[in-house]
Amino acid sequence: MAFITLPKLLLSLVLLAAIKLLTESMAFCALVAADTCASKTAAADGRLTKATINPRVANAEYAVRGEVLLKAQDLEREGKQKIVYCNIGNPQALGQKPLSFPRRVLSVLMNPEDLSRTDLPADVIDRARAYLKMIPHNAGVGAYTDSQGILGVRQEVADYLTKRDGHVGDPSKIFLTSGASAGVELIARTLLRSPEDALIVPIPQYPLYSAATTLLDGHFEGYELNEASNWDTDVSAIEAALDRVRKLGKTPRAIVVINPGNPVGSTLSESTVRKVVELCEREKIVLLADEVYQENVYSPTKKFVSFRKALLDLRKERKWSEYAVQLVSFHSISKGVSGECGLRGGYFELEGFDAEVKAQIYKLASISLCPNVPGQFAVGLMVNPPKQGSPSHELDQKERKSIFDSLTRRAQKMAGKLNQLEGVSCQPVEGAMYAFPNLTLPKRFVQEANRLGKHPDTLYSLKLLEATGVVVVPGNGFGQVEGTYHFRTTILPPENVLDEVLEKFAEFHKKFMTEWR
Amino acid sequence: MAFITLPKLLLSLVLLAAIKLLTESMAFCALVAADTCASKTAAADGRLTKATINPRVANAEYAVRGEVLLKAQDLEREGKQKIVYCNIGNPQALGQKPLSFPRRVLSVLMNPEDLSRTDLPADVIDRARAYLKMIPHNAGVGAYTDSQGILGVRQEVADYLTKRDGHVGDPSKIFLTSGASAGVELIARTLLRSPEDALIVPIPQYPLYSAATTLLDGHFEGYELNEASNWDTDVSAIEAALDRVRKLGKTPRAIVVINPGNPVGSTLSESTVRKVVELCEREKIVLLADEVYQENVYSPTKKFVSFRKALLDLRKERKWSEYAVQLVSFHSISKGVSGECGLRGGYFELEGFDAEVKAQIYKLASISLCPNVPGQFAVGLMVNPPKQGSPSHELDQKERKSIFDSLTRRAQKMAGKLNQLEGVSCQPVEGAMYAFPNLTLPKRFVQEANRLGKHPDTLYSLKLLEATGVVVVPGNGFGQVEGTYHFRTTILPPENVLDEVLEKFAEFHKKFMTEWR
Repeated sequence: MAFITLPKLLLSLVLLAAIKLLTESMAFCALVAADTCASKTAAADGRLTKATINPRVANAEYAVRGEVLLKAQDLEREGKQKIVYCNIGNPQALGQKPLSFPRRVLSVLMNPEDLSRTDLPADVIDRARAYLKMIPHNAGVGAYTDSQGILGVRQEVADYLTKRDGHVGDPSKIFLTSGASAGVELIARTLLRSPEDALIVPIPQYPLYSAATTLLDGHFEGYELNEASNWDTDVSAIEAALDRVRKLGKTPRAIVVINPGNPVGSTLSESTVRKVVELCEREKIVLLADEVYQENVYSPTKKFVSFRKALLDLRKERKWSEYAVQLVSFHSISKGVSGECGLRGGYFELEGFDAEVKAQIYKLASISLCPNVPGQFAVGLMVNPPKQGSPSHELDQKERKSIFDSLTRRAQKMAGKLNQLEGVSCQPVEGAMYAFPNLTLPKRFVQEANRLGKHPDTLYSLKLLEATGVVVVPGNGFGQVEGTYHFRTTILPPENVLDEVLEKFAEFHKKFMTEWR
Repeated sequence: MAFITLPKLLLSLVLLAAIKLLTESMAFCALVAADTCASKTAAADGRLTKATINPRVANAEYAVRGEVLLKAQDLEREGKQKIVYCNIGNPQALGQKPLSFPRRVLSVLMNPEDLSRTDLPADVIDRARAYLKMIPHNAGVGAYTDSQGILGVRQEVADYLTKRDGHVGDPSKIFLTSGASAGVELIARTLLRSPEDALIVPIPQYPLYSAATTLLDGHFEGYELNEASNWDTDVSAIEAALDRVRKLGKTPRAIVVINPGNPVGSTLSESTVRKVVELCEREKIVLLADEVYQENVYSPTKKFVSFRKALLDLRKERKWSEYAVQLVSFHSISKGVSGECGLRGGYFELEGFDAEVKAQIYKLASISLCPNVPGQFAVGLMVNPPKQGSPSHELDQKERKSIFDSLTRRAQKMAGKLNQLEGVSCQPVEGAMYAFPNLTLPKRFVQEANRLGKHPDTLYSLKLLEATGVVVVPGNGFGQVEGTYHFRTTILPPENVLDEVLEKFAEFHKKFMTEWR
């Protein structure tokens, strides 16, 4: 294939190189005085400005913390509005309490003097003692660990995977990370070599994927989720994206699937999960499974099925080789019912990668030394809660259930209330922590937005913020079908606040529709 | 300049592109069966292998956790050797106790139920309460914070800078990070756009700088430190490096200085620090000051002078503009007397950057959401210890002094003992946590190493490990003058262990010299 297009490719390369060099020289001459540009001895101005910053940094976008948030922070500083941050899945910032057991254990790990406390449940002390024993040389949480993460915690994750998927987990395939984002960035770095390498990402997507692709100078190719059938993943849409990439002469390097969906709140069926794995086997392409919301499935008719389970089931059924499909699946302590965003913990698990590639991933992790150690133990505490019969078990179960039940109620209420509004259509929130309603915006408003040079759903979100103090993220920050408009809101405000938010929103939206109709 | 060489450059680009494409096509054809390669419909094998991994990842090296460490871990697993890890500045892994006050505060932050404890000193509870108040919406350590870090902690850092440098600090110029490494990687990413952009780094260097440059596809240019005058930084060596870069037609983007020195253990005089700042003003080039060892100065005749102080002094004296010199200085909780490597906390401070660049840096930080929150508070606890008169003050001072005095004794002992050995010459350890002795290796040994395809100081380090269990890092991992040999060892083993290490080392080295002479 490469041979056929070689002369054409070369010609384009020459042209591109020429254009690039010309542009750079021109920018360079514009930046410095004409005489310096001509002189060989004077130093060019090497200071860092917006014009000379790495263009990949300048071009990277991360809408979750973008224009609407900055405006909200201004309003809050000025005391002009009581702000409710629905822009980001940050449960504890909206009042969710942390689980008691993990925090008690972490507190003892921070201050091992407390191992002698008698006012804490015995299983807290036991777990803290067991964790401290996992670190060689009695170094506690204050020392760098293995760059891959503490072996004992990786074993806890492996045991969780065994139980979850019915296939035995292996700690050597697990890498602990400082949150799932750090894992995604690391893996993307191993994959994207040049603008010729493509990451295949759902649209709408979580914008970490587009930002990472831009920063790594890769090619971003979206495949559209099917909004009409509750944002389902169509394998044919992924295949079409692969075709588009190949027609451009580029190499698809990996397919990203986010399940449960962010920003769309969907939950994939086992059949869909298996179809995606089969596609990856046929296409011999890496699969990146973002499963950070795996605990957050609210729909009584859906359940979370991991890509790991689907792969290992299929491998057995079809007698695939160990390397037939390469899967990286990501998890995090920031979501679920623990919601420990601030502790920055997570892991990824590798299936189908050979020892050489794992050694390279290990080396890359080692350059950043190790993930933060309290975050590592928080991963262990997430996947290995107190066992039945142990003193903390009952409280822990009660806390987990209370958070989960409340999230379920909020998921239902959010979609229900939004669907009562004219011009708003919201798919059920089956999972994750978000609703992604579709807005039918009045033509006159769209024209006004175009006149102001703002995306219509950005303008809508800014008006919503000003009127209500509610911060949402405009749909264009995630990608959406051209000509459709959305926003993402978390379902996370506490139930009484959520009622208020939904009321304010309804009031704003009715006025808005009357004003712009 | 670029205009003159345009045709030549284009020609080289065409040739390079052709070679690259040919090589890739050949590798591609070797990987898949000949018939698949010819067919247009069959998918190429897109699985991740060492051959298809991002070559920048494959080429990145990080010697601190390289071959010698891997060998040591094998020996330890096999129970063949008691291993002493002198390869990395990881104080608590070698027995250093954490400071009590910060750990007690962090423990209460982890479990705010403990705010009611009466068995903890009042200033511990007060500090924990003050920290919890810094986080909006009572979210505690469990929520994402401002991507730049918690404002209240940045204010504590600003106050520390005011006191340290005699120039008022500004929290808006401070970014908290998950350790200094994360900060260095972030800033390097803003600077290095292409292989035409160079980072100017001391030789020997801390290998994070070479690894980051390789990963970001930049050009690495070393300037040699002056071993004979205790690894001093010669401004003329930096100037020569700048010249070399410019002669290659490349753009120097930033100069790195590590003070106190890693791996060399030097401490720069105020006059040298000022000279480097003056150079950056003349050359209009960004200065990256790695000052993570600023608390670790042991020489009674030296003191730490920050690049920030030198810059702000000079700016005042010479009436430079606010943007005359751009300085990023890095600090960390991992070193000093806190030694909190596992908590992953640090910060960088920006001088001379305009609002547009700061906004870009902020956006880049926001893609990773925020540094871990316990690590952020640990930064505050490092720079703002308990005040005189408060209940924890005395214990805190005692602990700090005890660690510092012991480090000082070990620094002196290490250099002293090494210098007693034939063929070993070690500059005084004035600062940081390392000795970097020069080895005069017997010719026959160098020949043997060449025969085995190993760098002579790597082979030496492996032999040392096998004979003694002591893990050091070979000098070639840091860079050194061609034909010289070194290794880096920390001074961190506890004093009784250090005596043993030095004895074993002396015994090994004497035997070694006899064997190979």
